[in-house]
Amino acid sequence: MAKTETREETLKKIDVMAERLLKQADAKENLHLDIPIRGSSNVFFDEKGKKIVLGDKVAKRYLFNVAHARRFMQTMLVSSYVKKDLLENNLTATLRDLYYAKKHTIRGTRDENTIEEQNESDSAIVDLEVSLDTFRERLHLRAEPKGRMAGDMVVSDRVRNKVDKIDLAHMGSGGWAVPSIVEQVEFTDVGAEYVLVAEKNAIFDRLNEDEYWKKNKCILITTAGQAARGARRLIQRISTELKMPIYCLTDADPYGWYIYSTMKYGSMALAHESDRLGCPAMKFLGMSISDIEHYDLRNVTIKAKEVDIKRAQELKNYDWFKSREWQAEINKFLDKKIKAEIQALSSKSLQYISKTYLPDKINAQDFLP
Amino acid sequence: MAKTETREETLKKIDVMAERLLKQADAKENLHLDIPIRGSSNVFFDEKGKKIVLGDKVAKRYLFNVAHARRFMQTMLVSSYVKKDLLENNLTATLRDLYYAKKHTIRGTRDENTIEEQNESDSAIVDLEVSLDTFRERLHLRAEPKGRMAGDMVVSDRVRNKVDKIDLAHMGSGGWAVPSIVEQVEFTDVGAEYVLVAEKNAIFDRLNEDEYWKKNKCILITTAGQAARGARRLIQRISTELKMPIYCLTDADPYGWYIYSTMKYGSMALAHESDRLGCPAMKFLGMSISDIEHYDLRNVTIKAKEVDIKRAQELKNYDWFKSREWQAEINKFLDKKIKAEIQALSSKSLQYISKTYLPDKINAQDFLP
Repeated sequence: MAKTETREETLKKIDVMAERLLKQADAKENLHLDIPIRGSSNVFFDEKGKKIVLGDKVAKRYLFNVAHARRFMQTMLVSSYVKKDLLENNLTATLRDLYYAKKHTIRGTRDENTIEEQNESDSAIVDLEVSLDTFRERLHLRAEPKGRMAGDMVVSDRVRNKVDKIDLAHMGSGGWAVPSIVEQVEFTDVGAEYVLVAEKNAIFDRLNEDEYWKKNKCILITTAGQAARGARRLIQRISTELKMPIYCLTDADPYGWYIYSTMKYGSMALAHESDRLGCPAMKFLGMSISDIEHYDLRNVTIKAKEVDIKRAQELKNYDWFKSREWQAEINKFLDKKIKAEIQALSSKSLQYISKTYLPDKINAQDFLP
Repeated sequence: MAKTETREETLKKIDVMAERLLKQADAKENLHLDIPIRGSSNVFFDEKGKKIVLGDKVAKRYLFNVAHARRFMQTMLVSSYVKKDLLENNLTATLRDLYYAKKHTIRGTRDENTIEEQNESDSAIVDLEVSLDTFRERLHLRAEPKGRMAGDMVVSDRVRNKVDKIDLAHMGSGGWAVPSIVEQVEFTDVGAEYVLVAEKNAIFDRLNEDEYWKKNKCILITTAGQAARGARRLIQRISTELKMPIYCLTDADPYGWYIYSTMKYGSMALAHESDRLGCPAMKFLGMSISDIEHYDLRNVTIKAKEVDIKRAQELKNYDWFKSREWQAEINKFLDKKIKAEIQALSSKSLQYISKTYLPDKINAQDFLP
């Protein structure tokens, strides 16, 4: 099991950064931080690792530089909050909490605030993440959680000193809510053999009611739309630590493909996080445009909108959609100009997805890369 | 404990409706259904019961009436799906599943569909709900679920024949995801003494990490924004069946008040559901505009926007905001033109909400009605 960074190690990284700055001060240098550049000039697709990553361009941020000083100060405020308020107390907070906690009028000024809008502290947080080569959750900063899960596995989760063993096979119709931060989660008693990630709550409910995960020995996760960081990290950890196949199930439309690609390859905006949030081993089970013909769903398709066509054309040009299979899939969409929802399978019968569609696709290993 | 309608009883209601129609046919009458009117002319505020309800105006829908025939047919399609596909098989589905299942080209026509857009079948479902005096969840139709919970209580939840006992005191940092349908949920081993409903995931995470619900013997629920039907029904059931106080915690702004009022009184659009989804006993704990002064949060308030002012003026005119206390609260907002988020309390300290704000407010019983 890949050992993730501990709280002590993250604290140590902040101390090392602070000591480096103190040494610069002692040497009467202009205090500065090395911060990897996150702009598009430094983002590229790692073909071999199958993920969107940051290059190695680094910028220096100086304290004594009128263009840098404010941002330097904000990065220090953020570091101090993360170290003293969060990590040392073993507490977590949201980006919004941090903003409220560190926003104040600078002493000696009439109305100069340390932070004006939250986007300033948010940027400073990402600066800290990348310069420490760590990530937000390790800094004990929570994002909005989303997603539910059920299946043949027990997770042990810790809230401060309390450890809970949560049997995902006994979560009723609701499921376990995927937390904001999952670094502390451990996987035990794993009976499942693969993970099925559904974009939609409705599909989770359908498959859970059909006891699909039980009959097919899997773990069922819904991301309830675009996947939140917690869900992405959890899926990635299951993939790498338990070496289980991960299959993804979205609508047959460019928005569904985008949800899939973000989980698998990461995104340009969060290129610095692909190592922790991406899941290169994920496969696209469906629904594909070819499924529409194969499963005779033409009567329940939806006409593609202008925005869908435009989005598909964009996706077609991304390096991570350049495989022969995806190009063919996108071309088929652009040709037919129709999309379909997973629930279109309900036109056959309610349990068609559980009893026919999924077993068929998985038996045939009929996936897109 | 108030016994809710069983599956057999709902099935019986559909049969009774069908038999009534058959009798009309035998008597060569124009087949018709009595459907309570849901427009604003038939919605009013029940001062005593503290809920927004439907009046007793009823419309007749005829089969042999060109203006009614299509809708009549759609109501029959919906009834048949609910009876044969869902209730008799003990399965549930979404409104979307039903739409896909029953949409088809009418035999003998070239392109006349039974249902064109989903809003048609959705309306027919509500027609069926109100004419049977039941509600969507009893017809085994699921809405989008949202919300998480934790606390000193065990719930037993059933998925078909499997019964799971879910200990809400051991749900880790995620919590139990509140299901779409909660009619089958039962409450046992209740150690909690009240329920705290937080509008925001961030507050749930804060309070769960602080073990607030354990130290203060309560159940913690987040609705993650405007409350979903499942969460509303669950809160209502806890309130009426366990006779526990329910306190609500939202941002200090008109949107927060609206979230509160919908959970408490119901809404005009779903006036026919207030009996099952409303929670008249709910109290507004905060955050109030008065709290901004009392807790010295002036530096972390947000200037109200034009849309906030307009919304506040609307709310002020609603019958259910006519109490002296709410009129004073809304006037204070309109006067100061500032709002505040609950997280503004983090400017004091991260655990201020758990250690000071909530205990203070609850000890002083400082609520709005």
